[in-house]
Amino acid sequence: MADLIDLRSDTVTRPTPAMRRAMAEAEVGDDVYGEDPSIRALEERVAGLLGHEAALFVPSGTMGNQIGMRLVCEPGQEVLCDADAHVVTYEMGAAAAVFGISTRTVVSAGGRLDADQLIAQVRPRTDWHLTATAAVAVENTHNRGGGLVQPLEQLRRLWDWSREAGVAVHLDGARLVNASVATGIDLATYGRLADTASVCLSKGLGAPVGSVLVASAERIAAGRLWRKRLGGGMRQAGVLAAAGVYALDHHLARLAEDHEHARLLAKRLGVDPATVETNIVVLDDVAAPVVAEAAKAQGVLVSQVGPRRIRLVTHLDVDRAGIERAADVLSGVLGR
Amino acid sequence: MADLIDLRSDTVTRPTPAMRRAMAEAEVGDDVYGEDPSIRALEERVAGLLGHEAALFVPSGTMGNQIGMRLVCEPGQEVLCDADAHVVTYEMGAAAAVFGISTRTVVSAGGRLDADQLIAQVRPRTDWHLTATAAVAVENTHNRGGGLVQPLEQLRRLWDWSREAGVAVHLDGARLVNASVATGIDLATYGRLADTASVCLSKGLGAPVGSVLVASAERIAAGRLWRKRLGGGMRQAGVLAAAGVYALDHHLARLAEDHEHARLLAKRLGVDPATVETNIVVLDDVAAPVVAEAAKAQGVLVSQVGPRRIRLVTHLDVDRAGIERAADVLSGVLGR
Amino acid sequence: MADLIDLRSDTVTRPTPAMRRAMAEAEVGDDVYGEDPSIRALEERVAGLLGHEAALFVPSGTMGNQIGMRLVCEPGQEVLCDADAHVVTYEMGAAAAVFGISTRTVVSAGGRLDADQLIAQVRPRTDWHLTATAAVAVENTHNRGGGLVQPLEQLRRLWDWSREAGVAVHLDGARLVNASVATGIDLATYGRLADTASVCLSKGLGAPVGSVLVASAERIAAGRLWRKRLGGGMRQAGVLAAAGVYALDHHLARLAEDHEHARLLAKRLGVDPATVETNIVVLDDVAAPVVAEAAKAQGVLVSQVGPRRIRLVTHLDVDRAGIERAADVLSGVLGR
Amino acid sequence: MADLIDLRSDTVTRPTPAMRRAMAEAEVGDDVYGEDPSIRALEERVAGLLGHEAALFVPSGTMGNQIGMRLVCEPGQEVLCDADAHVVTYEMGAAAAVFGISTRTVVSAGGRLDADQLIAQVRPRTDWHLTATAAVAVENTHNRGGGLVQPLEQLRRLWDWSREAGVAVHLDGARLVNASVATGIDLATYGRLADTASVCLSKGLGAPVGSVLVASAERIAAGRLWRKRLGGGMRQAGVLAAAGVYALDHHLARLAEDHEHARLLAKRLGVDPATVETNIVVLDDVAAPVVAEAAKAQGVLVSQVGPRRIRLVTHLDVDRAGIERAADVLSGVLGR
Repeated sequence: MADLIDLRSDTVTRPTPAMRRAMAEAEVGDDVYGEDPSIRALEERVAGLLGHEAALFVPSGTMGNQIGMRLVCEPGQEVLCDADAHVVTYEMGAAAAVFGISTRTVVSAGGRLDADQLIAQVRPRTDWHLTATAAVAVENTHNRGGGLVQPLEQLRRLWDWSREAGVAVHLDGARLVNASVATGIDLATYGRLADTASVCLSKGLGAPVGSVLVASAERIAAGRLWRKRLGGGMRQAGVLAAAGVYALDHHLARLAEDHEHARLLAKRLGVDPATVETNIVVLDDVAAPVVAEAAKAQGVLVSQVGPRRIRLVTHLDVDRAGIERAADVLSGVLGR
Repeated sequence: MADLIDLRSDTVTRPTPAMRRAMAEAEVGDDVYGEDPSIRALEERVAGLLGHEAALFVPSGTMGNQIGMRLVCEPGQEVLCDADAHVVTYEMGAAAAVFGISTRTVVSAGGRLDADQLIAQVRPRTDWHLTATAAVAVENTHNRGGGLVQPLEQLRRLWDWSREAGVAVHLDGARLVNASVATGIDLATYGRLADTASVCLSKGLGAPVGSVLVASAERIAAGRLWRKRLGGGMRQAGVLAAAGVYALDHHLARLAEDHEHARLLAKRLGVDPATVETNIVVLDDVAAPVVAEAAKAQGVLVSQVGPRRIRLVTHLDVDRAGIERAADVLSGVLGR
Repeated sequence: MADLIDLRSDTVTRPTPAMRRAMAEAEVGDDVYGEDPSIRALEERVAGLLGHEAALFVPSGTMGNQIGMRLVCEPGQEVLCDADAHVVTYEMGAAAAVFGISTRTVVSAGGRLDADQLIAQVRPRTDWHLTATAAVAVENTHNRGGGLVQPLEQLRRLWDWSREAGVAVHLDGARLVNASVATGIDLATYGRLADTASVCLSKGLGAPVGSVLVASAERIAAGRLWRKRLGGGMRQAGVLAAAGVYALDHHLARLAEDHEHARLLAKRLGVDPATVETNIVVLDDVAAPVVAEAAKAQGVLVSQVGPRRIRLVTHLDVDRAGIERAADVLSGVLGR
Repeated sequence: MADLIDLRSDTVTRPTPAMRRAMAEAEVGDDVYGEDPSIRALEERVAGLLGHEAALFVPSGTMGNQIGMRLVCEPGQEVLCDADAHVVTYEMGAAAAVFGISTRTVVSAGGRLDADQLIAQVRPRTDWHLTATAAVAVENTHNRGGGLVQPLEQLRRLWDWSREAGVAVHLDGARLVNASVATGIDLATYGRLADTASVCLSKGLGAPVGSVLVASAERIAAGRLWRKRLGGGMRQAGVLAAAGVYALDHHLARLAEDHEHARLLAKRLGVDPATVETNIVVLDDVAAPVVAEAAKAQGVLVSQVGPRRIRLVTHLDVDRAGIERAADVLSGVLGR
């Protein structure tokens, strides 16, 4: 697929030659024994970036989110979140199936957090027959919301309320790096407004595998046991962690370029640029299967996320020239 | 509490002397061995009434609903239902906690089923990362919807669609008897529009304990094993089943009286009678704690189902005189 | 089956006329609201008898044991017990299926507790990959062990060790009343050697339905939520509780008679009387299906608990004359 | 820890320079989309080697075993296995906690499979209150059994019985490669005696991360969904798979060397060579903490697997000279 321009997702990025060298030279050990220096370095690095005590490397964003929620919610309790959140849409019912946790959702405006709307739906723990709300989950940036950045004041409102209410906050920060680069707000400012937070190394950052969960040291110790129980305890995973460290060193600032590419695509395709806050462009009211097929025939891959909706995601494997070409192809297909 | 007029719920009814006699004279056996003739008689009776092959006596509506959903949904899949449904509100997260089943909700107009709205939210089983929708659940009458009766044409629309879509339908018929009495549509007509359905003996029917789950013979056989696993296998439970049979013989038709009482209350309290379809009256925009406290001081118990919402439920333990007195007390308290 | 002598189990007893009267006259209320006076009276009575702070009425011994174990063991941890214990044999894998709790077993001599043998198998909570042992479960009397009574000094040894080790003890006391009557050791002496304990009302005590779980007030409050979640919350269950109270008043001391009947059966059938400690007689090295069939043809029902093992259980529905007749029939069948 | 001789486990091996090159040059894609060519190649290779239709790459042996058991056992049913099996000892209660599956064990002679002993403990699916045995699990070679190889005729006896009994067989083949190299019996001969089987790439084979589960194509498709749900779906995991393919190409035959090293250690330390069938040496009746500490002080790491038991595991990171030195150190410490 070397010639294809793949805009389906930023998960499709492949490690660069330099990243591969970092992996090949990684110092490793047995991480189940806690002896892999590259894993330790990555975990310390990410904990620091997010302003948390400790971190845990996990093989996927799903495992990071699910363990993160389990650490703040017991079986029989519920996590409340947006109806389009990744944790209730793309994680295959794991919260219920694996952990016995209920999920309940509110429909927000395109995924944008409205703290008071969420708070109004919380159910008290003191009742004898309601399903008690132990935690709320927030996704930032919001994938199905077209990469939108959650407003900081809403995150603060939710966090301040949560401290009084005794309800925990989990942050699905799969693309938190995009939010941070787009707004200039540092990762720790976001991270400190959550009890548990996950960030993904294998999306815009371009590492091949892995996410990192951050929380208090005590919670991460418990999370380590859950990771083992789920089968996420890996041995010389330092080869993966080294890619993550490399990505944080070299691919963080460059996300601005992906965002610029997304705006460029939007402009060329007649999409309101105000809807493009990071690296995702959503085309609505199009015949998704037809558009996807026609674009593919001309070497451009896009995602159908609904019968009338196409999603384009920019990332480091598609440079400016690729974006231009994709814009040409898609504007032709769309007749725009 | 003999002097109190208890309108909190129709679950509070106490067995009448005649029902107690029926219980005292019940022929019983060991139901775990399948040898209790009164249980068998009740199960056959209810299966027949609902138009299903087989039935299972369970100690509560919660167990009936949860086993019913488990019989049509595997761990990791989801049940879709109204956001105010009993199964996601008052059953303590059992679907997830006990069975690993996700629940997802849509907000309907006051609990009224809109089949197409529900259908639009169903997620396919063929996808590799969505949580697949295996079943939808419908509540009829709808408790938090103020006892509303689901429209038959909507139930039919859902059922017809479900046969093609390969999605199952569970009916939470805790108060299906009220729907049937209110509309004149027989129970089997409703029952045949569901793969699994529960009905409750200890609400308007006035039995002390128990619900009945109906389904195909094969599903009920599987449900019997789940009942045992959950600890719902009881021994000489025929004493309870006899009350259920008595209730079906003597308390079914009289539900019309409860409905009349509810309309009377509505009229006296200035509630739109169009909102009172069965035995529940909802008072909105009232200071719930204040009203409940003041009414209690005068011997009338009501439910607070929200900070500004009071629920009144009529049943066989409150006769016409009691309703009149409750209306007097509440109109005084409300200043209506 | 009025003419049959049913020695399959003491679960088959039917309520006596006097017990039925007590049920018919029971004062009841809505127990889900905590308002059933008969339930409250039963719970207080059993808590007191067992020397615990609080108690919870549940519909079955299975629910009592499973909730009891859940209160002292988290998902992912394990309960250690005898390989023939009811909790791992006859409760359909509920610990794992419902609560995510592992069970692990040791083979003891005929079910007799050897505290040190059990203790040697406990796995520490501090390890990062072992399944941690959170609790041990003991059954007294032991059903598959032929109704044997656990030695008090072994129970004490286990309890003393458990306090230091931070491991909880659950007592499956389905037939603890038989142990108490047989030994003269009061129920509280046994009860105080456990963190959680269940006792059954519907076995030798002759009530139709129900068990009672005892523990600390805090644990019982948590157990009440689990009971609701499992569907064990019943409404006017006071009719059942009244039978339980009646049984404790009138059927406790008479268990001595069942034990005498068991010894008589043993003597008549050539079974070593030393193996008959309470109300169960085990016949080994017999062709179980043949014996069961032949006895049934002559009006005596027995249990096959293995291809070469028959179990006889005495109880209040079989009087001295019935025992004599069963002995006649079985000695004929066995040729003893 | 470069100078240490690490005999704690064969999981501690680090990728060789050549393996790292293979990883650095690996062709990759998004495996969640099924587009990683290196993963596909590895899966096809292992499926072929084991004689199965299909295979699934997973991040750990624990995930391979647990998904493998889930594919042949439903929640509420049980898997029967040896009391010292890895699946019930070192996988943190995952079967129960994650999947609701009960595990039950029999104590075998040092882990050696006795098919009839296992078969005698199987519980039928037709019973209404027993926990039904859906599968048996066998570990080959057996870790806690000191690396023993399961007798082929016992595996065949179990398999033949299982086909008639309708009970599935799961093979924990974490070290099946060692069994195959030690006996000359090819992997497919072993693999075909199981419905599901896992093999580990990161033990003797020396890859950094990963195991492979094999089964029918239909089961693997279901397993792929469970892998996603558990959070084991990785993106460009081809970098790991390439190491696995390299290991199968270059590290399989050389396991004979590890076995020779183990025999050498046994001989030098006075251990009966008949107990050393593959790459594990068990030292019994030693003061494990003292020995481990003293050896460590001289640069040799060993595992304490009991208070009086030490385990030594040979692998590709310890060459002949290292083994000789370890033997010198340990014979000094042990005074042998």
